[in-house]
Amino acid sequence: MKIYDTKTAPTPRRVRMFLAEKGIEVDYVQIDIVGGENLSAEMKAKNPLGKVPILELDDGTCISEANAICQYFEALQLEPALYGHDPLSKGIIAQWQQRAELYLFMQVGMCFQHSTGYFKDRMNPIPEFGKEAGLNAQKFMHLLDQHLAENHYLAGEQFSVADITAFTAIDFARVVKIRILPEQVNLKRWYDEIKQRPSAQTD
Amino acid sequence: MKIYDTKTAPTPRRVRMFLAEKGIEVDYVQIDIVGGENLSAEMKAKNPLGKVPILELDDGTCISEANAICQYFEALQLEPALYGHDPLSKGIIAQWQQRAELYLFMQVGMCFQHSTGYFKDRMNPIPEFGKEAGLNAQKFMHLLDQHLAENHYLAGEQFSVADITAFTAIDFARVVKIRILPEQVNLKRWYDEIKQRPSAQTD
Repeated sequence: MKIYDTKTAPTPRRVRMFLAEKGIEVDYVQIDIVGGENLSAEMKAKNPLGKVPILELDDGTCISEANAICQYFEALQLEPALYGHDPLSKGIIAQWQQRAELYLFMQVGMCFQHSTGYFKDRMNPIPEFGKEAGLNAQKFMHLLDQHLAENHYLAGEQFSVADITAFTAIDFARVVKIRILPEQVNLKRWYDEIKQRPSAQTD
Repeated sequence: MKIYDTKTAPTPRRVRMFLAEKGIEVDYVQIDIVGGENLSAEMKAKNPLGKVPILELDDGTCISEANAICQYFEALQLEPALYGHDPLSKGIIAQWQQRAELYLFMQVGMCFQHSTGYFKDRMNPIPEFGKEAGLNAQKFMHLLDQHLAENHYLAGEQFSVADITAFTAIDFARVVKIRILPEQVNLKRWYDEIKQRPSAQTD
């Protein structure tokens, strides 16, 4: 199997970090998304949405979307479990994974795409919405800071895929000048701790 | 346990439809989101993001986000499995669930919120972005139509949670006048078939 990857992009980084936590090694093929390599007919046959990462199995079957690739590997090798063990931990982790995805990761991504016009050859950037998406991300970081006052990780005592999604979103947010604020001491404590994990060195 | 629900909103409908497929009965409490009942201090203690649906367990633990509530019930009662059985089916279903979530359900929701100003008391609608989100949803429906020419359901032969997400998004899209086009015969075949399932009568 192999993974089509782009070293500089935040979404494929989630998969690299997840696999590093699992101790699973996979071959990576670098795709130049700025040059549009992801939009070639060959790549769109693997993912019609033209996005990376893509996991390609040995029989040619492809799975895309970072969260789906991670769930495939979780089912293949449970430990260390990053989506939980029992119904309650699975539900709570899925809740925080989804919140981190929709209200942080996606907001940072839309802020980047709509504010900078980085992909203006393939989408219609609306700067006013880019600003709004950035504000949404900052609101969620405020909520996270409050939550982390009483929780070690997003889903409680256990490190999970939700931490990976939130951490990679906040790390990438520097490109749109969104930073953890000095008063967000709980978020900073959590961020600094995740940053020291060997899996976070995959960037 | 009970679920805080809003009959007219598309996100809680996903949970009702999922539980109908599982044959699980739960008590529902109706929340008036137009009147802002979801934003009360009591409800924000259950979900700080102020959204429905919310599952509340008997010990007071709350899980929100439709996809997370569904994963909780999947872990509690596997059959009929709606997130897959083995690593490959789990990965493929997760891929289509995520695509339906991000590129269809969320786009329809943002089109509605930004075009109509329905929640303008609690967000900043940007009509130009609302239009863009609607176009994104239509692009994904075109892709789905092509995909369903060779696949019975989104994830292949097996009905899954991804079908529920896509179906409820398309059903709700009528409020922003997005419809399956006459030439999208595969999407129409799939939609008509899902609409006949007893679980689709939950609206």
